[in-house]
Amino acid sequence: MVLGKVRPGLSDKKRIMETSASIIDRIEDLARVRGISLHAMLVGSAARGTWLSGDHDLDIFLGVPPNDDLGAALEIARLVAPVHEEKYAEHAYVHARMDGFEVDLVPCYLVEDAAHLKSAVDRTPFHTKYVGSRIIGREDEVLLLKQFMKGANVYGSELKVGGFSGYLTELLVLCYGSFAAVLQAASAWRPGQRLDLERHGIEKHDEPLIVVDPVDPGRNVAAALTLDKMLLFAGAARSFLAEPKLDFFFPPSQPPLSDEEIIARINERGTMPILLEFAAPDVVEDVLYPQLRKAEGSINALLERSGFSLLRSDVSTYRDRAVMLFEMQVWQLSKACPRIGPPAWEAEHLARFLAAHPAPFSGPYIANGKVVVEEARQYTSARDLLAEESANLSLGKHLSASIRDGYNIYAGQELLGIKDEGFRIFLAHYFRAKFPIG
Amino acid sequence: MVLGKVRPGLSDKKRIMETSASIIDRIEDLARVRGISLHAMLVGSAARGTWLSGDHDLDIFLGVPPNDDLGAALEIARLVAPVHEEKYAEHAYVHARMDGFEVDLVPCYLVEDAAHLKSAVDRTPFHTKYVGSRIIGREDEVLLLKQFMKGANVYGSELKVGGFSGYLTELLVLCYGSFAAVLQAASAWRPGQRLDLERHGIEKHDEPLIVVDPVDPGRNVAAALTLDKMLLFAGAARSFLAEPKLDFFFPPSQPPLSDEEIIARINERGTMPILLEFAAPDVVEDVLYPQLRKAEGSINALLERSGFSLLRSDVSTYRDRAVMLFEMQVWQLSKACPRIGPPAWEAEHLARFLAAHPAPFSGPYIANGKVVVEEARQYTSARDLLAEESANLSLGKHLSASIRDGYNIYAGQELLGIKDEGFRIFLAHYFRAKFPIG
Repeated sequence: MVLGKVRPGLSDKKRIMETSASIIDRIEDLARVRGISLHAMLVGSAARGTWLSGDHDLDIFLGVPPNDDLGAALEIARLVAPVHEEKYAEHAYVHARMDGFEVDLVPCYLVEDAAHLKSAVDRTPFHTKYVGSRIIGREDEVLLLKQFMKGANVYGSELKVGGFSGYLTELLVLCYGSFAAVLQAASAWRPGQRLDLERHGIEKHDEPLIVVDPVDPGRNVAAALTLDKMLLFAGAARSFLAEPKLDFFFPPSQPPLSDEEIIARINERGTMPILLEFAAPDVVEDVLYPQLRKAEGSINALLERSGFSLLRSDVSTYRDRAVMLFEMQVWQLSKACPRIGPPAWEAEHLARFLAAHPAPFSGPYIANGKVVVEEARQYTSARDLLAEESANLSLGKHLSASIRDGYNIYAGQELLGIKDEGFRIFLAHYFRAKFPIG
Repeated sequence: MVLGKVRPGLSDKKRIMETSASIIDRIEDLARVRGISLHAMLVGSAARGTWLSGDHDLDIFLGVPPNDDLGAALEIARLVAPVHEEKYAEHAYVHARMDGFEVDLVPCYLVEDAAHLKSAVDRTPFHTKYVGSRIIGREDEVLLLKQFMKGANVYGSELKVGGFSGYLTELLVLCYGSFAAVLQAASAWRPGQRLDLERHGIEKHDEPLIVVDPVDPGRNVAAALTLDKMLLFAGAARSFLAEPKLDFFFPPSQPPLSDEEIIARINERGTMPILLEFAAPDVVEDVLYPQLRKAEGSINALLERSGFSLLRSDVSTYRDRAVMLFEMQVWQLSKACPRIGPPAWEAEHLARFLAAHPAPFSGPYIANGKVVVEEARQYTSARDLLAEESANLSLGKHLSASIRDGYNIYAGQELLGIKDEGFRIFLAHYFRAKFPIG
């Protein structure tokens, strides 16, 4: 039932094989003509037969001997895909749409073993080799696991998600044997869970899940997995095993909230949602999301430090905009505010403190041994604080620039002013925040 | 200048001596007639020449041999003061108004030494004996110190004040030599300051000021002094030495706040004062105030635990009423409130937690490894919390009964509803809360 939806059809498989073979042929022809030593190969889930139906990504690596330069390989990639976009991770690579596929053409070094890389991408061919021969006959288990993880919102090792990579799901199936066995085992996971298929791990890792890379004993394949996503998966596994339902694989989509629904949610919750909205900096998500999360943390700290209290916060992007949402439990404070000074017997500190607070509402008085004055608070409203101080915060490089260029604040029902459907779906997810945790 | 106001006049001195001598004579006559072995004596500040002008308290002790019974002495006290009130500390004693004085007639045992008492009051004659002979010629220093402490609101060892007892001020003058020397020394006091005139102290004490009793090496004379009153005195001493002013001895009195002033204070401070008002239980202040302070602490804790935030609180009594004032920085909260559950991997705890929170606004979700739901808060307003929960708190015995009998809540400008002058003076002091701390 699930497999019927996630297993690529025969014609899909045929098409992916033909397309990748034809691209590899063209690459190797060009290399031969130019006298370049180069070995092109299909890597990733397409190479291992573990791609989900509807996933049209092809990863083709252009391997050169470790002492050669990657430049010649990159030049060939450019020629093979005349219409392309050049991207950059540790080195440059080519992204193009070819024959209906999203193709990455990635130059790499053909190193001897995965523990001695010249570049991070050099490891990938070893992964394909390791998994490829062992996964045969268990491809469906991987497909089920990937789709289950998608349903639980824990699939993908990109920083926006912080979930499980495709390679990691394959290793889990190899480790435990089947989709059901992975769920059974994950049900009992705790932070610090360690898996080592080749029993060759040596280093300690601090991450919540440690899966020693079979091709590189020093590396944790699950390094990008966050604690909460790991536990979300474990909780979903328990929940599914207790009551298996198709919804786990294909959860109903959240429709965007209507104006009436937004008003109803805000009234029911009796909170004050405050939204900071600005132009999303033109950088990839793996750069943007860590900056958004860091900024969210800085603003949370500023709000709490200023006496306000947060219920929850989240960040998102839609079209070319970025938003940070802060939902407040306390958004309004008294004008008077205590300033706690030094212990009353520290005469010199005290003199400086009193000089710095010459005209308080009340005080100085002594409470619990310390001198206290009560004076006017700078911000009595969380909205004012955000409106005035957001541009002064030291945030990530791209984000700081973007916020300094201008931002909008929407508080409470002012959220209705944003009609974008992507934003309204984000809000729907935010308010619901319900996960199948058992 | 100060002495002119605080030193009793010659006629006052004559009157006090005559009155006490006549009362003592009557007591000893009655004892003789009844064949009772009894020695009556004037104790306290009147006996030592260190009473402040306008202070009309006479303490007369009726000492009996340690193996006798106090009953016969009490009977004589009753006869000497036919119109009296019977009071009770550790034992019964007689309080009466005689010849314009407030007289306490206190039976006690004539023990051999103050370290082996049969009753706490037995120590007092030893204090009078110790101080009496040594203080001669320094009575004015004591008077200045007492009046200075009155001005700083730190005089009196009763629990409502938690300040310096008369005996303690005398010991300070004996220890340092003069009023000015006491202030000089106190300027540098820190918590843990220890004085031992007879250099015979042996026990450790946790109190902020330790003054070993010259007549009882195990006792701290300053045991009732609170940290804040000690430091208030030290701060006032520093402040006075830097800029001596008559105001320290005779601070201007606070007039009661008018309606307009109350409104102005509340608006300026932007806080929410909430007052709990009820019948003061008919007990002495030394019983009532500890209960009021304890109740204040319990309610503060309840407010903070419920998510509200307090600026300051205080308690007071006027006529036959008692009040507790809670001034809020945060008095209104969102309806939605996070409930933080167990770590997500504790499956059994989690199942119980989820069963206990079946229909939250949001969640369950995982944050920092723990399962969280967001549900409706019981009290979103501090006023409602106090109105509903005050009677359920486990407060002191007399207070609980009194509050269960009924209480009123006044919030914000509703305070105007209380016209009592004593209450309005309490409010004036509360809002000002300004002390001469240097």
